[in-house]
Amino acid sequence: MVRSRANINNMQSVQIHNGFFIVLARGEELMATLRQFCEAQEVHWGQFQAIGAVEDVEIGYYDLPTRQYVFHREAGPLEVASMDGNISELDERPLIHAHAVLSRCDETLSCVGGHIRSARVALTLEICLWQVTQPLLRGFDEETGLNLLRI
Amino acid sequence: MVRSRANINNMQSVQIHNGFFIVLARGEELMATLRQFCEAQEVHWGQFQAIGAVEDVEIGYYDLPTRQYVFHREAGPLEVASMDGNISELDERPLIHAHAVLSRCDETLSCVGGHIRSARVALTLEICLWQVTQPLLRGFDEETGLNLLRI
Amino acid sequence: MVRSRANINNMQSVQIHNGFFIVLARGEELMATLRQFCEAQEVHWGQFQAIGAVEDVEIGYYDLPTRQYVFHREAGPLEVASMDGNISELDERPLIHAHAVLSRCDETLSCVGGHIRSARVALTLEICLWQVTQPLLRGFDEETGLNLLRI
Repeated sequence: MVRSRANINNMQSVQIHNGFFIVLARGEELMATLRQFCEAQEVHWGQFQAIGAVEDVEIGYYDLPTRQYVFHREAGPLEVASMDGNISELDERPLIHAHAVLSRCDETLSCVGGHIRSARVALTLEICLWQVTQPLLRGFDEETGLNLLRI
Repeated sequence: MVRSRANINNMQSVQIHNGFFIVLARGEELMATLRQFCEAQEVHWGQFQAIGAVEDVEIGYYDLPTRQYVFHREAGPLEVASMDGNISELDERPLIHAHAVLSRCDETLSCVGGHIRSARVALTLEICLWQVTQPLLRGFDEETGLNLLRI
Repeated sequence: MVRSRANINNMQSVQIHNGFFIVLARGEELMATLRQFCEAQEVHWGQFQAIGAVEDVEIGYYDLPTRQYVFHREAGPLEVASMDGNISELDERPLIHAHAVLSRCDETLSCVGGHIRSARVALTLEICLWQVTQPLLRGFDEETGLNLLRI
């Protein structure tokens, strides 16, 4: 996923007493930009919620029988009706785990939901991120095939 | 949007260490009541989440090509399956930006999602509001036609 | 709802500066496990959000005309695209009030939303819980037939 340097610089953020308020700009890729922000600001563990609009989304679910994620691509744009996620560490790097409900910009306002692999900001994405004061670490879980939290 | 004085007074709130817990009563209009609360309590910047039920909702999306919001009216009642929003300032007045996923009270439990313009509380609406300690200000953005956050 | 002792013990939690981060394990029932956690940790009042996946869900809405909840059963598994809730006290016991948007693990990614009566964790459920520093108490409301917050 290639993003221009200009787009990275368009992001705004401000530190609040227990975290950050972050505004992503049109064209920025959510997951890569947020991961880069966490690395730069040394945010290892956190919880966030976001609203805004996205396009070119990969959204899906984990299929336990086949032990793999199944993703669908939605061209959008779609409203981010809800997005919740957390930030943890896997192999000493920040891992963004985000779920969302995205609503179609048409007369149905119908929704798709699930696990977000990637999403490009369509208009803006307004994120409130709270830092977690204790380690949230992940490790591989044999039973599910997922990198689950080991806290 | 006219609300009776009685309905305004039915709202309950309690200050918690970093914000407020607010309970809106049946019949109150969400956006006007919350804006009035923020003005009275001098809450300039914040983040909130809410659950409950609403009716007479205007919900929609921003259409970039025409640079205007498109709203649909849902009579409801609908469950507020998810509602996230933030409070910022535009021209020194509080602006409530709220997105929601609303589920139909029938056998489908199907959902509509998007940007909330107005919504009347159907049973109750339980809001947890965290104050943000740094200014969240909005300004007009030429590219999108929206009042985006300038933090 | 009977859960094995083993499942209760599979839950993980860590105290953070204003609450807890909790990870429920595959097979645990959300509502009973979270209520038991709150009793053990003396969490009387709080707000939480969660992502993960669930199955064997009872989800529905409150029907005001008949003054009763109507629940549908979803076998799942479903992704927890969004879950928000609060913890309050009714008759001095913790009451979990949780709403969620659940998305189907198929090509539609379609969503059902509403009030959660019960849900079994399918893979994992990652919960961020903030403690509320003032009493959130419930009492019976004649008009709606619900146990509403009296704060």
